Amino acid sequence: MSIADTGEFGLISRVVARLDAGPKALLGPGDDGAVVAAPDGRVVASTDVLVEGRHFRRDWAGAAEIGRRAAAANLADIVAMGADPTALLVALCAPTDLDVAWAEELAEGLAAETALVGAGVVGGDVSASPTLMIAVTALGDLGGRPPVTRDGAQPGDIVALAGRTGWAAAGYTILSRGFRTPKALVEAYRCPQVPYAAGPRAAAAGATSMIDVSDGLLQDMGHVATASLVAIDLRTEAFSVPDQMRDAATALGVDPYHWLLAGGDDHALAATFPPGVTLPEGWREIGSVHDGEGLTVDRKPWTGGTGWDHFR
Amino acid sequence: MSIADTGEFGLISRVVARLDAGPKALLGPGDDGAVVAAPDGRVVASTDVLVEGRHFRRDWAGAAEIGRRAAAANLADIVAMGADPTALLVALCAPTDLDVAWAEELAEGLAAETALVGAGVVGGDVSASPTLMIAVTALGDLGGRPPVTRDGAQPGDIVALAGRTGWAAAGYTILSRGFRTPKALVEAYRCPQVPYAAGPRAAAAGATSMIDVSDGLLQDMGHVATASLVAIDLRTEAFSVPDQMRDAATALGVDPYHWLLAGGDDHALAATFPPGVTLPEGWREIGSVHDGEGLTVDRKPWTGGTGWDHFR
Repeated sequence: MSIADTGEFGLISRVVARLDAGPKALLGPGDDGAVVAAPDGRVVASTDVLVEGRHFRRDWAGAAEIGRRAAAANLADIVAMGADPTALLVALCAPTDLDVAWAEELAEGLAAETALVGAGVVGGDVSASPTLMIAVTALGDLGGRPPVTRDGAQPGDIVALAGRTGWAAAGYTILSRGFRTPKALVEAYRCPQVPYAAGPRAAAAGATSMIDVSDGLLQDMGHVATASLVAIDLRTEAFSVPDQMRDAATALGVDPYHWLLAGGDDHALAATFPPGVTLPEGWREIGSVHDGEGLTVDRKPWTGGTGWDHFR
Repeated sequence: MSIADTGEFGLISRVVARLDAGPKALLGPGDDGAVVAAPDGRVVASTDVLVEGRHFRRDWAGAAEIGRRAAAANLADIVAMGADPTALLVALCAPTDLDVAWAEELAEGLAAETALVGAGVVGGDVSASPTLMIAVTALGDLGGRPPVTRDGAQPGDIVALAGRTGWAAAGYTILSRGFRTPKALVEAYRCPQVPYAAGPRAAAAGATSMIDVSDGLLQDMGHVATASLVAIDLRTEAFSVPDQMRDAATALGVDPYHWLLAGGDDHALAATFPPGVTLPEGWREIGSVHDGEGLTVDRKPWTGGTGWDHFR
């Protein structure tokens, strides 16, 4: 059955049946707007869009995995501000011949990923469109903490990472060459494992800046360096190449450090901390902040690629 | 110059330069998430998506008008909950050959409409896409009032309307028949005039239910009747047909009451009030709430169309 058969309201009711508005929803889907608790008196909000052919392929990942990824990309932005996610809103644009079961599985994936952080899906919109597209807005609560922005890194700070990098990029390369294994790398591309708890924990520990690594560590830490008016150096010795990644890199003729340092989509969190701080659970040191500008790797300019530009 | 020439970050900086984060933004665009004031301790949130060919045509309206409409559709949802809009987030998906000036004008339209309600555009995302699509999320603050939902209408209540209906539908019919005048009707389609202040005012006056009329009065009041477990009757005598609309209806062979009662996209507000209440400024009585179910016009079933289904 296609979504043309169910119609707009039929699709909405089938999708909403698979969602949970979560504990922070004071009013869930079904009205003009949802009402979400914002006990801090401030709300953190972020929007990320996924377009078929650009950000996902239906032959590379299942609907539930795509739903998880759409949620993860947005939830990661909220925790990267040091906030606790409270709610998602989802706009789905889909061709009228889309199987309604695909939309239902997408909703299940969105719900499952969102439940990981104690949030829920509180609203959204659907429309027919020649291009399949998922736009998600995530909301979060700062719990009395100041937001952790990109512009607070100070010379002398430690650069630290929570979560993993390079896995999704390796999976993407593997899929784009027509392979389906190693499974662990392909799964990482299909559905990131975001270290959600590490974001608020870094905020509580006094992180001076933080960012969600969505476009690659070099590009995203470059944003931090630019915003903070500092230089940032990453140390390759802080990154060990996992065996599966090394094997895949050798087989595909890729430098695994390109995946580790320039690959996006794992939604690791990168942050800077004052010198001498005890890094909170889940964080490890990967570099340092200096006077100057720009990003270096082992104190030298990086000569590989730096990440994604979604128009090129 | 196309957006492929500017690239993702070039486009973002050009668009952001035309936006204003507004007085409620504690942190505007440029980080992983925005931070918006939510003094009430609750936030109202709503998402609406506009897809080219479904919700707008670039040959029927300018980019600034499309931007105003995208903002208006979402801001209307917030005021229909009785809340004051605080912020918008915007996801723009666009073909890579889109002229960057079009995106800049879109941003100017979004900013202008949002400024009407004292809110601002605090964040968003851009992506390349074969289909031009604008997904907007609006946030609002209830100012201590309870949200006005769809399910509170009581038998005996008055049905009232703020703003106008039928104008955008008339404009749409005119444009779809290949005409460009009367200008007032065409302009109404291109850019709705939403009675924003009437929403919070109705909430303060004790409205028992409220809805943004986006799909047509009959369909949207049908949602209120269903959610409230009541019957709603609208009176055609409450609707006078404006001269320009009557002339256009005659010329095009359309019943103007079809536009007035079933036409969407003007984003009027419809609400129910307890009997005997003095309707607040900008509201006029158009019907009544009864025991039973369903929607009638002059106490008879309506036999025309009831509004839009975005998949049919």
